[in-house]
Amino acid sequence: MEYRIGLIGCGTVGQGLLEILLKKREQLKEKFNFEAKVVSICDKLKGSLLLPEGIDLEKLLHLLEGGKKISEYLEGESNEAEHFDALEIIEKSNADIFAELTYTDIKTAEPATSHIKKALKTGKHVVTSNKGPAALYYMELKKLAQENNLFFRIEGTVLSGTPVFNLFEHGLAGNTIKEIKGILNGTTNFILSKMEEDNMDYENALKLAQELGYAEADPTADVEGFDALAKIVILSNVFLEGDIQPSDAEREGITSLSKEEILAAKEDGFRYKLIASTKKENGRIVASVSPQRLPLSDPLAGIMGANNALTFDLDLLGKVTIQGPGAGKIETGYSILTDMLAIHRKLVK
Amino acid sequence: MEYRIGLIGCGTVGQGLLEILLKKREQLKEKFNFEAKVVSICDKLKGSLLLPEGIDLEKLLHLLEGGKKISEYLEGESNEAEHFDALEIIEKSNADIFAELTYTDIKTAEPATSHIKKALKTGKHVVTSNKGPAALYYMELKKLAQENNLFFRIEGTVLSGTPVFNLFEHGLAGNTIKEIKGILNGTTNFILSKMEEDNMDYENALKLAQELGYAEADPTADVEGFDALAKIVILSNVFLEGDIQPSDAEREGITSLSKEEILAAKEDGFRYKLIASTKKENGRIVASVSPQRLPLSDPLAGIMGANNALTFDLDLLGKVTIQGPGAGKIETGYSILTDMLAIHRKLVK
Repeated sequence: MEYRIGLIGCGTVGQGLLEILLKKREQLKEKFNFEAKVVSICDKLKGSLLLPEGIDLEKLLHLLEGGKKISEYLEGESNEAEHFDALEIIEKSNADIFAELTYTDIKTAEPATSHIKKALKTGKHVVTSNKGPAALYYMELKKLAQENNLFFRIEGTVLSGTPVFNLFEHGLAGNTIKEIKGILNGTTNFILSKMEEDNMDYENALKLAQELGYAEADPTADVEGFDALAKIVILSNVFLEGDIQPSDAEREGITSLSKEEILAAKEDGFRYKLIASTKKENGRIVASVSPQRLPLSDPLAGIMGANNALTFDLDLLGKVTIQGPGAGKIETGYSILTDMLAIHRKLVK
Repeated sequence: MEYRIGLIGCGTVGQGLLEILLKKREQLKEKFNFEAKVVSICDKLKGSLLLPEGIDLEKLLHLLEGGKKISEYLEGESNEAEHFDALEIIEKSNADIFAELTYTDIKTAEPATSHIKKALKTGKHVVTSNKGPAALYYMELKKLAQENNLFFRIEGTVLSGTPVFNLFEHGLAGNTIKEIKGILNGTTNFILSKMEEDNMDYENALKLAQELGYAEADPTADVEGFDALAKIVILSNVFLEGDIQPSDAEREGITSLSKEEILAAKEDGFRYKLIASTKKENGRIVASVSPQRLPLSDPLAGIMGANNALTFDLDLLGKVTIQGPGAGKIETGYSILTDMLAIHRKLVK
């Protein structure tokens, strides 16, 4: 079965997805009878394309790698897509599935939420790694998708392509979740690992994380726990059927944690981790992000460096922990593919 | 949708499954539209029942918990099932799905393989946690199932109910596996953990494992690596499309490993684990079980006690590790339910 794909936003994740679709084309067709034809791309900085008959991914990736504009793909031919904004592109595109891959704005969830609504209202499935809409409007968007007989999937919003939502849906179904606990931010886990393992102080560990590309120039979203907060809100609303907002959860970052506290914990056989957790107490979601002193026997204590991990505490299986990458071009690009394959599986038996 | 279920073997795992089906009845119906009616049970020691209209699980579990025979369920009424052997029960049963839960015989894979073949030839799906048939005849049984438009699923053969096959099928699809490495035997991991953490020698750690019910009176299958071997053969044949037998893989247990070696490794920042691994080299499967000295940064180094874990090394995602229980009544009982739900999902869209 062939799906027409539209991309909104074509930065790192979008390019990762395109690379995977190109590299895996034969394998996906042969193993899953899944074919993807990219028919529209729209990026605020790089320009837009609407080609209902499909875009040559090799040619497009060559342009993008060379830092060229997307519209150069047409080699001087007139490009009608240039005259449209993102919402018009979504409406006019013949895509079956849209991948929403613009930047995360955790305060407003825009413009991503408007993109997603437009896609769902014009008959397109939506797959996203954008945390904004998932954290602020999950229930509303899920409902909108269902009303239109469409899918809205968000695997990439937590632990990038490492399966969390697909893991529970297929591998853990039937369990009741008692608690979810995770290391959901790679930047802070890298910094804490360096402070403990290499005896670095916070400032130097942060500087190293910035040099290695793990931390932004303004690291606030990571180190103050806002990124992990958005993710634990998503997990609460998806898995515990909550309807909470980021302001409903406690948040404490790692900036107030000293090297001395970390080393003292190590002496005692403990390890500090920035833990995001959520559970239901008397029907109410209790979610938080805070540095916690874990015994080394905790499955999350051994997660070092920029890795991410999540523990489901379940009534039937007890603790099941998945560990894997939490970011990356190909890793997050894969999260989009895995959700497209999930949609494919649901549409075709 | 209602499924008629048959059990072959009603020991710990079977009773675990029955408890789950009873406890989760409403939830499974409401969330997944999945209903299970147990219509036949056959156990070499406890007797048999054939009740096409369904067995009252509460009544049956009450008998089993009291150490009673299964046939006492009929309270003196004549029990035609008593006159049949397992193969006849399978043939006569009106079950849609059979759960094969007899003991693992890793040398012959019998009588389980005959049970499974009979079920598949008489139109019943098969779900099993029995390692014998999966290790010795996976390809043959899978093919037999496909020829009959049926499913043969084996989630419980590796890591009990912790998802491995369902994880890859849905959460990691599209990745190419470079290598699989795992801690697949809880008994040996418990013993090695005790030797390192509590400074116990092998004999005392084994004795403790036996006292706690983690190890058998004859611990050979675990400590010499035969159990892990069967599991890595299954993983090789399912995930790497191999067709290997246990004799095709190297095997070394933990009995030759001394406390001194373990403590010396610890001094150097390493940890001994019994590692089962498999990969393809030049089109050929290379699989082995052996004690390995892992750096503490390895995702498997932090798995302590009777826990199990498995790392997929993937072309797109890199290393993804799942950790969870590797044994247990409810945990393995759940592995049967999860595969029944997988069949349900495939049959009903």
